[in-house]
Amino acid sequence: MRLLEEKIRNEGRLLSGNVVKVDMFLNHQLDVTLLNEMGKEFYRLFQKENITKIVTVEASGIAIACMAAQHFHVPVVFAKKVESLNIGQNVYSSEVFSFTKQKTYKIRVSQDYLSPDDCVLIVDDFLASGSALTGLIDIVKQAGARVGGVGIAIEKGFQEGGQKIRSQGVRLESLAIIESMDDQQIIFR
Amino acid sequence: MRLLEEKIRNEGRLLSGNVVKVDMFLNHQLDVTLLNEMGKEFYRLFQKENITKIVTVEASGIAIACMAAQHFHVPVVFAKKVESLNIGQNVYSSEVFSFTKQKTYKIRVSQDYLSPDDCVLIVDDFLASGSALTGLIDIVKQAGARVGGVGIAIEKGFQEGGQKIRSQGVRLESLAIIESMDDQQIIFR
Repeated sequence: MRLLEEKIRNEGRLLSGNVVKVDMFLNHQLDVTLLNEMGKEFYRLFQKENITKIVTVEASGIAIACMAAQHFHVPVVFAKKVESLNIGQNVYSSEVFSFTKQKTYKIRVSQDYLSPDDCVLIVDDFLASGSALTGLIDIVKQAGARVGGVGIAIEKGFQEGGQKIRSQGVRLESLAIIESMDDQQIIFR
Repeated sequence: MRLLEEKIRNEGRLLSGNVVKVDMFLNHQLDVTLLNEMGKEFYRLFQKENITKIVTVEASGIAIACMAAQHFHVPVVFAKKVESLNIGQNVYSSEVFSFTKQKTYKIRVSQDYLSPDDCVLIVDDFLASGSALTGLIDIVKQAGARVGGVGIAIEKGFQEGGQKIRSQGVRLESLAIIESMDDQQIIFR
């Protein structure tokens, strides 16, 4: 998606350790107009999949998921990362390792909000190692629901996540795939 | 806002300890159509305040903030709750006590995304003790920005938060104010 690639190129900041900082529009400050265009693009890509729910994980996935959901006219369900007093006992859960935070955490979705009747579009802001995404797919499968597709904003094409997920036969579409990057420039696939 | 009150009455579940569980539409599963109506209502209420940014705190505030931002045509900035490797050193921060989770945590906003030129609408899903809101107001003031108003989805009118914030001269509008509740019924102000 050219609009997103240009935004990354013009405003993103390249940090050491293969980090591209996009928190000026994607995961701290949110450019809602851009997010809505991204949501529209996900709809264009997945509109034939009979999506009934959009699933993401807190926190930065929520904004993109909501914008996309407006076009699909379906609810969003976001997996929670921390144990909450109010989520109840009946949950699907999976373990995720965060490289950014260097720790393992559980993600959880209440069993009330996913069922075998659901066809789910999973949405997230970043795909690198694929750990969060693997956890979300695991949760959707625990519910007996179908993964209708996965929509990612920015995929780091030089890490293994995309390959890992696509090799499972899941339809994965990333709006921008970074083929390579160093501290000087960024090349999109 | 009648639509929200009806939704709470029809779908919300009253739990012991003055908890109203609304995670079927507001903070786990998200009814995006309803959230958009709420965003529209915040716009109606605050459109004359020259809002330049909407500020909230992760995670459940993000959805409402984004929906509102579409009507104001301004960016969202969400305060982060946990130390992240990528947020950088230059942050405004404040301490918040969560009664739900029974712990104190820090919330942080990068100094890049709030400035003295900003007039901020603070948005959140719940107002009870007012701890999170007080932290957000503190952060906006640290930035030298103006609090143009506060928009809350559900205020627990029987707790002290609303009174505390309004007595500071802040314009606080809640779309539904629960006057009293027990495990049988809920009465709105």
